[in-house]
Amino acid sequence: MSFAAVDVIRAKRDGGRLTGEQIAWVVDAYTRGVVAEEQMAALAMAIFLRGMDAGEIVAWTGAMIDSGERLTLDVSRPTVDKHSTGGVGDKITLPLAPLVAACGAAVPQLSGRGLGHTGGTLDKLESVPGWRAELSTVEIVRQLDEVGAVVCAATEGLAPADRKLYALRDVTGTVESIPLIASSIMSKKIAEGSSGLVLDVKTGSGAFMKTPDQARELARTLVEIGTAHGVSTTAVLTGMGTPLGRAVGNAVEVAEAVEVLQGGGPADVVSLTLTLAREMLALAGLSTVDPVEVLASGAAYRTWRRMILAQGGDPDAPLPTPRHVQVVEASQDGVLSTLDACSVGLAAWRLGAGRARRGDPVQHAAGILCHAKPGDAVVAGQPLLELHTDTPGAVPSALKALESAFTISADDEAPASTGEGLVLEILR
Amino acid sequence: MSFAAVDVIRAKRDGGRLTGEQIAWVVDAYTRGVVAEEQMAALAMAIFLRGMDAGEIVAWTGAMIDSGERLTLDVSRPTVDKHSTGGVGDKITLPLAPLVAACGAAVPQLSGRGLGHTGGTLDKLESVPGWRAELSTVEIVRQLDEVGAVVCAATEGLAPADRKLYALRDVTGTVESIPLIASSIMSKKIAEGSSGLVLDVKTGSGAFMKTPDQARELARTLVEIGTAHGVSTTAVLTGMGTPLGRAVGNAVEVAEAVEVLQGGGPADVVSLTLTLAREMLALAGLSTVDPVEVLASGAAYRTWRRMILAQGGDPDAPLPTPRHVQVVEASQDGVLSTLDACSVGLAAWRLGAGRARRGDPVQHAAGILCHAKPGDAVVAGQPLLELHTDTPGAVPSALKALESAFTISADDEAPASTGEGLVLEILR
Repeated sequence: MSFAAVDVIRAKRDGGRLTGEQIAWVVDAYTRGVVAEEQMAALAMAIFLRGMDAGEIVAWTGAMIDSGERLTLDVSRPTVDKHSTGGVGDKITLPLAPLVAACGAAVPQLSGRGLGHTGGTLDKLESVPGWRAELSTVEIVRQLDEVGAVVCAATEGLAPADRKLYALRDVTGTVESIPLIASSIMSKKIAEGSSGLVLDVKTGSGAFMKTPDQARELARTLVEIGTAHGVSTTAVLTGMGTPLGRAVGNAVEVAEAVEVLQGGGPADVVSLTLTLAREMLALAGLSTVDPVEVLASGAAYRTWRRMILAQGGDPDAPLPTPRHVQVVEASQDGVLSTLDACSVGLAAWRLGAGRARRGDPVQHAAGILCHAKPGDAVVAGQPLLELHTDTPGAVPSALKALESAFTISADDEAPASTGEGLVLEILR
Repeated sequence: MSFAAVDVIRAKRDGGRLTGEQIAWVVDAYTRGVVAEEQMAALAMAIFLRGMDAGEIVAWTGAMIDSGERLTLDVSRPTVDKHSTGGVGDKITLPLAPLVAACGAAVPQLSGRGLGHTGGTLDKLESVPGWRAELSTVEIVRQLDEVGAVVCAATEGLAPADRKLYALRDVTGTVESIPLIASSIMSKKIAEGSSGLVLDVKTGSGAFMKTPDQARELARTLVEIGTAHGVSTTAVLTGMGTPLGRAVGNAVEVAEAVEVLQGGGPADVVSLTLTLAREMLALAGLSTVDPVEVLASGAAYRTWRRMILAQGGDPDAPLPTPRHVQVVEASQDGVLSTLDACSVGLAAWRLGAGRARRGDPVQHAAGILCHAKPGDAVVAGQPLLELHTDTPGAVPSALKALESAFTISADDEAPASTGEGLVLEILR
């Protein structure tokens, strides 16, 4: 069936509901270049301002999946994947994938690269010497069978319509639309062929969704799309007001993930890893397996080593260290009452941990270590933040981003950081 | 001052007011290709759905004027121009320009070509053998001084931003926005350098604005923009439910215009020509001149001949005749109660009088003659409509467009067509 692009744009512009046929046509025609970039830009703005109902969003997601291939993961274990909407210091995939694999599931984590102040999982893993992100579909399936976990770059063939549309939305002010965000996330994840999917939907200053209400609406939409497309989907709403763990950046986050896999690590990272693992195992039909035991046994860490080795990495090689380290000290005694995720993420980005434009390189050693977390007692002169960079010229702008990043209060009423309260709600 | 395009888009998307600096920058940057087509498409859709206030519209118009040259018409007579928002059978410019010139004003009518079911003045005049639409600025000024009236193609240097934006709006479903329509019309007209401007804002089935309320809002906006930019502006709201006059097309409309200039012609065309002439003369400071007398004296017709001759045309050469004529007859006795402008315009377009795409040729001889107007008594078998075309294969689709174009009622209650009631309101 064929339509005129301008009629589809007008229908949405005037607040109408697009039919499944219109959506299938316009997404396919856009992918093929028949619908021009400026026409999709106008349609995206109309969708942004007029919205789409659940049926339209499911159809839009389906059309984006159909623009490319949908992987068939012919592996012997049950497949289950996790996706985070992005947060500061969010390295959870790194301990989580090998942990869930060690529990008996297969975890196919096809990821993108970071853009802006929240880092990308591939950028973090590339700080491991020798590790490579690009795998063929055959290599992915083999590694899933042999190791149980793979974290690699999404292949070009998955949801090409989404890749094209995402680049367009980025320059046309049409990013922050729940229908467009939800269909973008789910088209990629569903195309990856996993049978189960757990979504970590973050809310707070360091997240894309600033309020719990926005995050809840996104979570609900994601679960609806997954369910409609036959993928068992759970969404976990988590707070992102302060960085997750103590490390924000690339190599520093890998080091922290390894600590967790070796039985240590910050309480909030351990707690969230276990929560998400339990949800994934439930979807994989493995709810009788206790991830606490598997983590404590060292099995998750052994799977991590195999996962790194399988992709050419050396798990024993020292991680890159920065050329320059700058310490920010506490100016007074008291309790660290706030440490703002957005400011810390922005500062790490300016130090070189993230990129401003697609295709730019990132500095493996750049990032920030948080020596105190909200609730910790501090004394004047003690290190609060440690800035890592290979480009000392970036320090002043990072310090500027950190200007009002934290507050120290004289009393000690702030609760200690335990990782409790991080999970706000679970939608199944 | 420089901005990021995406910030300007977001500001309007979120319902904000754009500053004069933002508007000046985004229009200029778009003209230079710095702001991409897809970015302007998203902004146009945001403007469509969020609107612009009077100050924004005035600034947007100013930015489009500034994208090109603004003519300085250094002529000895007062300059005054007319623009119509477009209607079926609207040949008013043809008798009006020479009439107002014969009354003592200078009328610089820089026009576009038709697209869709309403014809373009240049397309109509090009049916006069030898007549050419393209004049240089020097030729325009000389002809204004010597003849007093010039109807020619707008030069490429006038409001280039509007030309680019208009083409974009056409394919992105962002045409029917009053702020964008008003700024488009006024940027071209103000750039032409006339001191006074009368706008014929049409409403009804054959017009762009289907309801009087929409037309009134557009009229009010046009007057605001003109006034703010120092051009004395009057808007006349006129009905466009039925074709203006009896001729719709190219050569047939020229013939009807000549009838009017020779003292005859349909009552509605004569009436509207005189109304608009009076408004133009008032703006030119010539309100003591009576256009009825000037028309009756033959002075307007003599000016028409000089105007045609000055642009290479032969006012005595026979106009092109069609290869094929098809007559639609009345099926019963009664009174023609309706004759729908939109249907007749569409049929004439299909017969070859208009073009589907920019740059397509038009047939000079194509069009429709209406042998009866609403209010006329008709008898079964008498000719109602006469279809002219060089391509007989187009007749069936023209007849299809005319299927419910008219109704004949058995009683004779419908009022006779006199041209009274055509003018709904005048905004000064």
